[in-house]
Amino acid sequence: MRISVVKYSIFFLVLVKFSPVFATRTFKENEPCKRVVLYYHDILFGGNDTANATSARATNGTGLGKFVLGMLVVFDDPITKDQHLHSTPVARAQGFYFYDMKTTYNAWFAYTLVFNSTEYKGTMNIMGADMMMEKTRDLSVVGGTGDFFMARGIATFQTDEVEGFKYFRLKMDIKLYECY
Amino acid sequence: MRISVVKYSIFFLVLVKFSPVFATRTFKENEPCKRVVLYYHDILFGGNDTANATSARATNGTGLGKFVLGMLVVFDDPITKDQHLHSTPVARAQGFYFYDMKTTYNAWFAYTLVFNSTEYKGTMNIMGADMMMEKTRDLSVVGGTGDFFMARGIATFQTDEVEGFKYFRLKMDIKLYECY
Amino acid sequence: MRISVVKYSIFFLVLVKFSPVFATRTFKENEPCKRVVLYYHDILFGGNDTANATSARATNGTGLGKFVLGMLVVFDDPITKDQHLHSTPVARAQGFYFYDMKTTYNAWFAYTLVFNSTEYKGTMNIMGADMMMEKTRDLSVVGGTGDFFMARGIATFQTDEVEGFKYFRLKMDIKLYECY
Repeated sequence: MRISVVKYSIFFLVLVKFSPVFATRTFKENEPCKRVVLYYHDILFGGNDTANATSARATNGTGLGKFVLGMLVVFDDPITKDQHLHSTPVARAQGFYFYDMKTTYNAWFAYTLVFNSTEYKGTMNIMGADMMMEKTRDLSVVGGTGDFFMARGIATFQTDEVEGFKYFRLKMDIKLYECY
Repeated sequence: MRISVVKYSIFFLVLVKFSPVFATRTFKENEPCKRVVLYYHDILFGGNDTANATSARATNGTGLGKFVLGMLVVFDDPITKDQHLHSTPVARAQGFYFYDMKTTYNAWFAYTLVFNSTEYKGTMNIMGADMMMEKTRDLSVVGGTGDFFMARGIATFQTDEVEGFKYFRLKMDIKLYECY
Repeated sequence: MRISVVKYSIFFLVLVKFSPVFATRTFKENEPCKRVVLYYHDILFGGNDTANATSARATNGTGLGKFVLGMLVVFDDPITKDQHLHSTPVARAQGFYFYDMKTTYNAWFAYTLVFNSTEYKGTMNIMGADMMMEKTRDLSVVGGTGDFFMARGIATFQTDEVEGFKYFRLKMDIKLYECY
């Protein structure tokens, strides 16, 4: 009889291995497989501050509304683990944002976090709406490479400081739910 | 003997739980886990129509061809459940499109659907080519948040109405295949 | 006894079918489910070469640094299976790139590969940083349609030829890890 049990079990194991029914997955928002909290610093080029500036206006506002709708900014911004602009960056954020509302300041981002620290090498690709008037807002991590190979998740933005159009700092709380 | 069967079965169950072989997934195009049909309305700013306009040109066409290649439009467009522009929006579409062909009108989109209705809260992030001359064209839903946490799928565009550069309406048939 | 074994096994099979614990997946970087090597040709519009040009500047550099940071180019570029510009294209790449560093040439891409060959119909959506000074760099394939329905993966760029701002060719080694 023992032999017969083993035979059946092997049969089921084979079935399990090749059956697509096991595709069901769930993620829990409070159980990411990896979490990284980072600070993003943006210093907008004013014309004379090349040494300090990390981003620049590729287009100006369009005149639709009073909140620079259509102003598009290209950036290569330092990313630090704490709030200090002059801490050693653990990554660069390369990409762009633009303002997109006529009734308030509101932006849309797409960028790559390029990590180059002892802790992490690789990239994360992120996009989504930055509803600046909300306390927190969630963007999507849509892919990654290197240490973040094939990652997906959520990047939660929180405004940490704003100095007019000259400087702002965002807290980015990145939670990955797909880690490989 | 019953005892031995149970023992084996537990063994296999444990094996199943921790084995990566169950990763195989399949999706069927005609069996989305969620489907939402929406209408997108774009009213391009003409210079004097601030009250009505929902989008604006950040750049003009480049002169390569006669189909405004390089014209980039930033939008915060209302999304309705039926075709009527003045129906209560269930979401906003925030993002941009630009024209990209020298031989015909053809566009490329990246945007976020920001839902704020009794039915849905949360966002979907979408990108892809809008081959305007095709009857339907498929873009990718690459991520989502809130009610669309970690979503992926396809957004099928269909042109529903065009009034020159002033107004156009798209039907967006959104099929999600990853729902959590 | 045989009957009893079968009964138990059915029980476990049912358990397996509906249990979310089987969600674990792994991908191996050297074992993509599909791989496509392509060449991307970009001929930047100079003002008089409409017939040949495949891309055009929507914005100029901003003056932050000497590496055209902020120059944004919209393209509809031919994709070939070999290095020859005049080989029959198997796809078009529609999208944009912009330069984003003040200290060197460095770019960021988002685009759609629109396939229309006997081999493939459908699209792939790709985004990420193009660190031009690196020998190879990895971008993310974040979605797909048609033959690439729901695809995800990595697109590895390698610069194959550069002729100033007039022409460049990239080798794109695309490895998909999610295929459906």
